[in-house]
Amino acid sequence: MSGNKVSRKKSCNHCKSRAAAAPADTSQIHYEKFWLFRHCSSVQQRDRQAQKAGQLFSGLLAMNVVFLGCAFISSMIFNHVAITLAEVWILLSILKVLCLCWIIYYLLGISQQPHAVLHRDSHAGPIWIRGSVLLFCTFSVLLNVCHIGYSTILIQCKSKVEIVFPSIGILFICTQAFFLWHHSKDCIQVQHNFTRCGLMLTIATNLLLWLLAVTNDTIHMEIDSQLREVDERFAGKAPFSHPCNETTSCTCPNTTICKVFQKGYILLYPFNTEYCLVCCSVLYVMWKNVGRRISHHHVPHTKPKFKLQGVVFGPLLGAITVIIGICVFMMYQIQATGSFPSHQVFVMYYSYYIVLLPLMSVAAVIGTIIHALEKKELDTLKNPTRSLDVILLMGAALGQIGMSYFSIVALVATDPMELLNSLILSYSVLIIFQNITQNVFIIDGLHRQRFLAATEAGHTGHTGQQAVTSELPSEEETMTSNKQEDTQMSPGKEEEMKEENPEAYDQRRVSMLELGQEIRKVSLSYIHSYSNLSWKRRALREISFFLVLCNIILWVMPTFGAHPAFENGLEKSFYGYSTWFVIVNFGLPLGVFYRMHSVGGLLEVYVTA
Amino acid sequence: MSGNKVSRKKSCNHCKSRAAAAPADTSQIHYEKFWLFRHCSSVQQRDRQAQKAGQLFSGLLAMNVVFLGCAFISSMIFNHVAITLAEVWILLSILKVLCLCWIIYYLLGISQQPHAVLHRDSHAGPIWIRGSVLLFCTFSVLLNVCHIGYSTILIQCKSKVEIVFPSIGILFICTQAFFLWHHSKDCIQVQHNFTRCGLMLTIATNLLLWLLAVTNDTIHMEIDSQLREVDERFAGKAPFSHPCNETTSCTCPNTTICKVFQKGYILLYPFNTEYCLVCCSVLYVMWKNVGRRISHHHVPHTKPKFKLQGVVFGPLLGAITVIIGICVFMMYQIQATGSFPSHQVFVMYYSYYIVLLPLMSVAAVIGTIIHALEKKELDTLKNPTRSLDVILLMGAALGQIGMSYFSIVALVATDPMELLNSLILSYSVLIIFQNITQNVFIIDGLHRQRFLAATEAGHTGHTGQQAVTSELPSEEETMTSNKQEDTQMSPGKEEEMKEENPEAYDQRRVSMLELGQEIRKVSLSYIHSYSNLSWKRRALREISFFLVLCNIILWVMPTFGAHPAFENGLEKSFYGYSTWFVIVNFGLPLGVFYRMHSVGGLLEVYVTA
Repeated sequence: MSGNKVSRKKSCNHCKSRAAAAPADTSQIHYEKFWLFRHCSSVQQRDRQAQKAGQLFSGLLAMNVVFLGCAFISSMIFNHVAITLAEVWILLSILKVLCLCWIIYYLLGISQQPHAVLHRDSHAGPIWIRGSVLLFCTFSVLLNVCHIGYSTILIQCKSKVEIVFPSIGILFICTQAFFLWHHSKDCIQVQHNFTRCGLMLTIATNLLLWLLAVTNDTIHMEIDSQLREVDERFAGKAPFSHPCNETTSCTCPNTTICKVFQKGYILLYPFNTEYCLVCCSVLYVMWKNVGRRISHHHVPHTKPKFKLQGVVFGPLLGAITVIIGICVFMMYQIQATGSFPSHQVFVMYYSYYIVLLPLMSVAAVIGTIIHALEKKELDTLKNPTRSLDVILLMGAALGQIGMSYFSIVALVATDPMELLNSLILSYSVLIIFQNITQNVFIIDGLHRQRFLAATEAGHTGHTGQQAVTSELPSEEETMTSNKQEDTQMSPGKEEEMKEENPEAYDQRRVSMLELGQEIRKVSLSYIHSYSNLSWKRRALREISFFLVLCNIILWVMPTFGAHPAFENGLEKSFYGYSTWFVIVNFGLPLGVFYRMHSVGGLLEVYVTA
Repeated sequence: MSGNKVSRKKSCNHCKSRAAAAPADTSQIHYEKFWLFRHCSSVQQRDRQAQKAGQLFSGLLAMNVVFLGCAFISSMIFNHVAITLAEVWILLSILKVLCLCWIIYYLLGISQQPHAVLHRDSHAGPIWIRGSVLLFCTFSVLLNVCHIGYSTILIQCKSKVEIVFPSIGILFICTQAFFLWHHSKDCIQVQHNFTRCGLMLTIATNLLLWLLAVTNDTIHMEIDSQLREVDERFAGKAPFSHPCNETTSCTCPNTTICKVFQKGYILLYPFNTEYCLVCCSVLYVMWKNVGRRISHHHVPHTKPKFKLQGVVFGPLLGAITVIIGICVFMMYQIQATGSFPSHQVFVMYYSYYIVLLPLMSVAAVIGTIIHALEKKELDTLKNPTRSLDVILLMGAALGQIGMSYFSIVALVATDPMELLNSLILSYSVLIIFQNITQNVFIIDGLHRQRFLAATEAGHTGHTGQQAVTSELPSEEETMTSNKQEDTQMSPGKEEEMKEENPEAYDQRRVSMLELGQEIRKVSLSYIHSYSNLSWKRRALREISFFLVLCNIILWVMPTFGAHPAFENGLEKSFYGYSTWFVIVNFGLPLGVFYRMHSVGGLLEVYVTA
């Protein structure tokens, strides 16, 4: 510890000035150690093995926690009497408190240590991910507030734990959001194993919270049963009644505040599951980045900015889609939330999708074909954030695809010729097709090298060239940058030369002019190739912009309460209430997460096109 | 195609002689192409991207098939009326027939093409894996024969499809086993994408067969209900009755043959699930190896042979364990298969485990510590088969660990103080601990470099040295082998020299004697270091041998019918029959697969220690 401090004092006087360009001082590097691998020949190899072992052990910790939690939650589902929801909450609260302690220790202890965060992963935690963490955090806090309010009003028939647990929940959600907002890019270099275990514990806790949210339908059931009581007076017995005897006596009094809490709870419920999923993915990237040393060649990675130029049809078509979508959504929400949703509203809803989805699929296919036509190099550098993006895209798509297959089987087995059934059937088939084509388009786009940087290089010279070289593999890179130092001069050096020797400077000036003409030639040829390629680039931008807007509307609709898969009642009566509830609750949040993630991926494709 | 043949004729005359030493002729290499990546600068990069795209698309195919099958099977479970078992069988039979067509095309078409199989992965499909494929294949065929026999006897109340489907099953199982036996090491170099799709389709089919076997309890139920009818006469109504109305009228007549088929079906049932899992893992390795070009430096990989020397306590303790285990198993089988299994037999069974598991855990922990003490280099070369081994070990352990956590929660919630409950509780905790410690031991052992080869190098000279160098990274390797050619001579060359020039040979002979003395010195120092290390190596071998025998007995017991997790009835009454049936049917085959896989891994650790 004291040795670290000494080295810090020694090195920091002159390292600040060259921090961006030169690699970090080797004295700052904390190589990982592990008792299993003490006899490795090289420090690097020992470090790598210790890293693997640390990942294995922290993974095992998470696995055990997740299994224990799964067993608890399953017991609660299949044996209400022996394990109650309160006991599951106690387990989760213990986990939350442990996570809180670790996060606070990280914020105040680990991250404050010298050389703790030497590198920050520029790909990790982009603004749209951190923004959605903050957004979902707000909604989740509101959800918990609604829960506390609802329980306070009905305090006579609810236990006090229903107020205590949401309070712990609010604390956990806020602290975690703060932690992720500030530290999601960290590549932590000290206390590797403790950090890994803490991150894995937090991931496990979030996964269990998600699992509980997906399978726990008690409050839904409670509110549903109140609605059903009204229905039963008209139509005899309900088709499917769930065993929730103890709650039926506990009805909401007819005050506005209680209704607000009830409605707020139902509307905000999906955000909580989203929040858990997003946090898991950010924490996983942090876990992968523990102990990672990013080579400094990649640091001056100039991100191209989002510019809205040269695109017309994409935004136009997209805007029309969004407007129609909002109208459909409004009409759906007004009609479907009533006691007896009409047949027509479902026909309208599914028709909208059946028109939209083929358009999106065709756009994605055309985009993929254009990618194939483009003579662009592939970016084959290792990039853990991109790999995770690809995995998450594929994984999140599984939710919707799985649900679609379940729908298809149910509908084919029932009566595929009926109008609504055939609509839902085509909707399900199209969803599968659309998800797959869009995934291929995004994954392909993420692996293309930035063309923008290459064309701008001709115009802006030095900076642009740096941006291009930063994309090349590291061996070539060092060669190029050496050459660059020989042939080109920084503006500061030029100024010095002018002062020292004016004549030599003039001579130099002429050759510089010649060089300038050559550069102009090169840039003209660049512009030529640009105008040749521009229709492809423009088409790619139109397509990705259109898909971004489409995905936004497809993200908004299920998020704010349109769940026709549950409300149309066809699959529900086929699989039974509980089974379909679990399938939808697994599939829907994943689907919403997929749309959100696609928007991020498509924006990147748009920017780099 | 004709071009290929020409190049084959040209190159094959002189390539046979140097096939083992020199890299393959570049004209033989079929680089992969994909329409998406036509404009890559280098052939290698295009090849790699095409490989990734091929894997993505074949993976998508498998995903869709698996989802469709899952939806079918779930529909059958949750809605017996709309989707019947026969319809699921029709789907699976279509898939089986497609797989059969592909396998036959592969056997007769693809693998017969010129340069189709240039490389064979020496790590893939070791003999114990292929042996178990063959073993499980035999048992699965017998199972299907029993099924056909049982259905033939009860033909009056069964449909004819119950005879047709098992027949297709037998054909599929046998063809697949033949295919895997002969081609599991192939690194196919032609028709990459078609091969990948075929392999993925076969994997998906096997996965679905496994899923159906895990969740489909119709025949079990049928036989169970017959037993229960007898019980009901004594004890009134059964505690849990499943809806299987149509089968209760269809009872087995009191002939021996029917009883044999019935008993055979129940006994052989777990082997079928095993078979599917083993096939999946072998097929996955094949899929990973499609288009892989193994550098020829790794080809002369001399595998150390299995030798039983220097180990005493391991085999002794292991043999005692196995003998006691067999006795316990016999007593268990005799008592537990009766109508009223006694309390004592479970106490005996679990006591055996409670004594054995801590021993195994301690052995694994000591082994891991010895690994850490040993000054051995780590083998960090890329090795897809080993990576798969590690993943399969961890994945298969999840089955038992998950089941244990479910048991723990059920028992703690019920009454942990009762004798049998506390026994099962400690058993469950110990199983988790044992699985984790053993996994760490095996994974660590698989990553250690072969020490045997290094010590033998001193004694046997040339061959040993080759074995050592084959473990080094490829750059150093080429250097070493060049040096080797300069300084050492092959025996054949020596013989030639003797005949040509006897005097020069004698002079040479003296210097050879000096060299011999030097070699003796070196080997003495080797023996010295060997005797220093030998207690560690001996301990590692004792431990791994002991663990091999323990895992064999723990593998035999559940495989041949000891399922106390189901027969003790505690968890069954806690979670309900159906839920616990699914949990056990997921966990048990994975557990058996884990034991089998551990034996393979431990044997490798034993051999390389």
